[in-house]
Amino acid sequence: MPTLNDIIAARPNVYRFLRPTPLHHYPGLSQLLGAHVWVKHENHQPVGAFKVRGGLNLVAGLSEAERAAGIFTASTGNHGQSIAFAGRAYGVRVTIAAPEAANPDKVAAMRGLGAEVVLHGPDFDAAREWMAQIAAERGGLFVGPTDERLICGVGTYALEIVEDLPDVDVIVVPVGAGSGACGTGIVAKAVNPAIQVIGCQSAQAPAMQHSWASGQLVSAEMRTTAEGLATRVPFENTQRIMCEMLDDFVLVDDADIDAAVVTLLQHTHNLAEGAGAASLAAALQIKDRLAGKKVVLVMSGGNLSVGKLHDILQKQTR
Amino acid sequence: MPTLNDIIAARPNVYRFLRPTPLHHYPGLSQLLGAHVWVKHENHQPVGAFKVRGGLNLVAGLSEAERAAGIFTASTGNHGQSIAFAGRAYGVRVTIAAPEAANPDKVAAMRGLGAEVVLHGPDFDAAREWMAQIAAERGGLFVGPTDERLICGVGTYALEIVEDLPDVDVIVVPVGAGSGACGTGIVAKAVNPAIQVIGCQSAQAPAMQHSWASGQLVSAEMRTTAEGLATRVPFENTQRIMCEMLDDFVLVDDADIDAAVVTLLQHTHNLAEGAGAASLAAALQIKDRLAGKKVVLVMSGGNLSVGKLHDILQKQTR
Repeated sequence: MPTLNDIIAARPNVYRFLRPTPLHHYPGLSQLLGAHVWVKHENHQPVGAFKVRGGLNLVAGLSEAERAAGIFTASTGNHGQSIAFAGRAYGVRVTIAAPEAANPDKVAAMRGLGAEVVLHGPDFDAAREWMAQIAAERGGLFVGPTDERLICGVGTYALEIVEDLPDVDVIVVPVGAGSGACGTGIVAKAVNPAIQVIGCQSAQAPAMQHSWASGQLVSAEMRTTAEGLATRVPFENTQRIMCEMLDDFVLVDDADIDAAVVTLLQHTHNLAEGAGAASLAAALQIKDRLAGKKVVLVMSGGNLSVGKLHDILQKQTR
Repeated sequence: MPTLNDIIAARPNVYRFLRPTPLHHYPGLSQLLGAHVWVKHENHQPVGAFKVRGGLNLVAGLSEAERAAGIFTASTGNHGQSIAFAGRAYGVRVTIAAPEAANPDKVAAMRGLGAEVVLHGPDFDAAREWMAQIAAERGGLFVGPTDERLICGVGTYALEIVEDLPDVDVIVVPVGAGSGACGTGIVAKAVNPAIQVIGCQSAQAPAMQHSWASGQLVSAEMRTTAEGLATRVPFENTQRIMCEMLDDFVLVDDADIDAAVVTLLQHTHNLAEGAGAASLAAALQIKDRLAGKKVVLVMSGGNLSVGKLHDILQKQTR
């Protein structure tokens, strides 16, 4: 399991290309939740999501031979953009499998960063299994979404949170494959075990939550529209860390996530994708337990397509 | 006229409370414009707009007596949020007049930052003249939107641009009262006179552009929906600086600004308010002149209301 020290060691790899993201306090959200509410703006990253920290840490540590062979991965979008960004930064060839119905903005963004993107299969897990095969055949490194080097890289945002707000009480973090929640948990519990770390996932894609709650790796139906939360098959290594680090793990309906997208637009003027808005949806659901506390909501990413945004506004406003 | 040195001197006042904002490169916008395109993300500021830099610089320099008397200003929203933010940071009482039809999100945000907001008059200029009277009666400082201390504060974003991208060719900057354009011009021309600084304003609120083009202070009809550009009566001091510093000053239709809001959502996943999107609208209009160049678009702010966003998406998509 990665340690606080491993995450501290990732910082130079991250800050070679990125700056810390802001942690902003919002009076409107604070009023709404009856708490003191800050948002960690990972949507401000150059590719619009926290994962870019992990990609940069991973590629920084590759051998010359690994870089020369190119790297392979699968992604619904943000993880792929992260690896593509890092590959471009270091001149490493990147090949990405994405599900056939992937968010077209995210596919365009991965291609814009120079990656080769191949659409394959009905969901992330199908694309992942297929691309892992191809990487093995070609002798290149397949980067899974829960690689420890990614966890250490993304954990650097949690270090920024505890530095900017040392007396934080609760951090609410969305869970897709779990790298963000793991990095946050490792940092928070090492710095101050009293900091509560609460994961959240869509009720329409509850595999990670069910696995956490039951202590066993269980797959589950996946029909969320929030692709950043769309995990059907749980990951063993992040589950192991989350078991130890999460104080709670909340499921929120996609409809509540969509409502949270609108609330965040109104109070922060930031566009959150579904995963990025799930932390607010979860906080609203457990509002009673947050009363008066210092709460950080991780806005993990902002890569919502214009079409999806329009649909949400049609449903949620007026 | 403020100098580069005055703007450098403002930095400690700004960085006491804020971090530099990102300058992100966007492949999608670059393709669209046939240029290398970066966006300066002033929408990432804690109050969602560049002006907060100016407020912090101004309040930092007030005397004890001025702080004790409280400060007064008028605003369509962003300037007021800036002064309110700075007032809260230093414990100074802030009173703000806003036009009766002010963006309700921005009014709520000013109040959320602890300012007293009074709605008065049909537009910014009416609110301003009224509040300046009241400040004089009460013996408090009235802060006009083009105070030199504000220009120096906001100019710090231009320093960040030339530090992050020393070989920038063109900076496109929206003009409301002109503080951003002045700060940008002073920095750019002092650092490298070959950097082109291009202002832009709504064709539905062309007072500042008409004044710049004619060399005389002329008011003009004001019916833009982009409140950050909604100047009816031009400002003498910013006009004087812009005369010297701007290479061009482009008018863009409100409809093109609305289209640019959607294009920015698509390619950057950032919400821009009208003023913040005007720089892209202007760049698209003068695309031929930008071909192959390194272009920075200043996204001056992101405080678009959800209702207005919904209206824009209704008109622009599908």
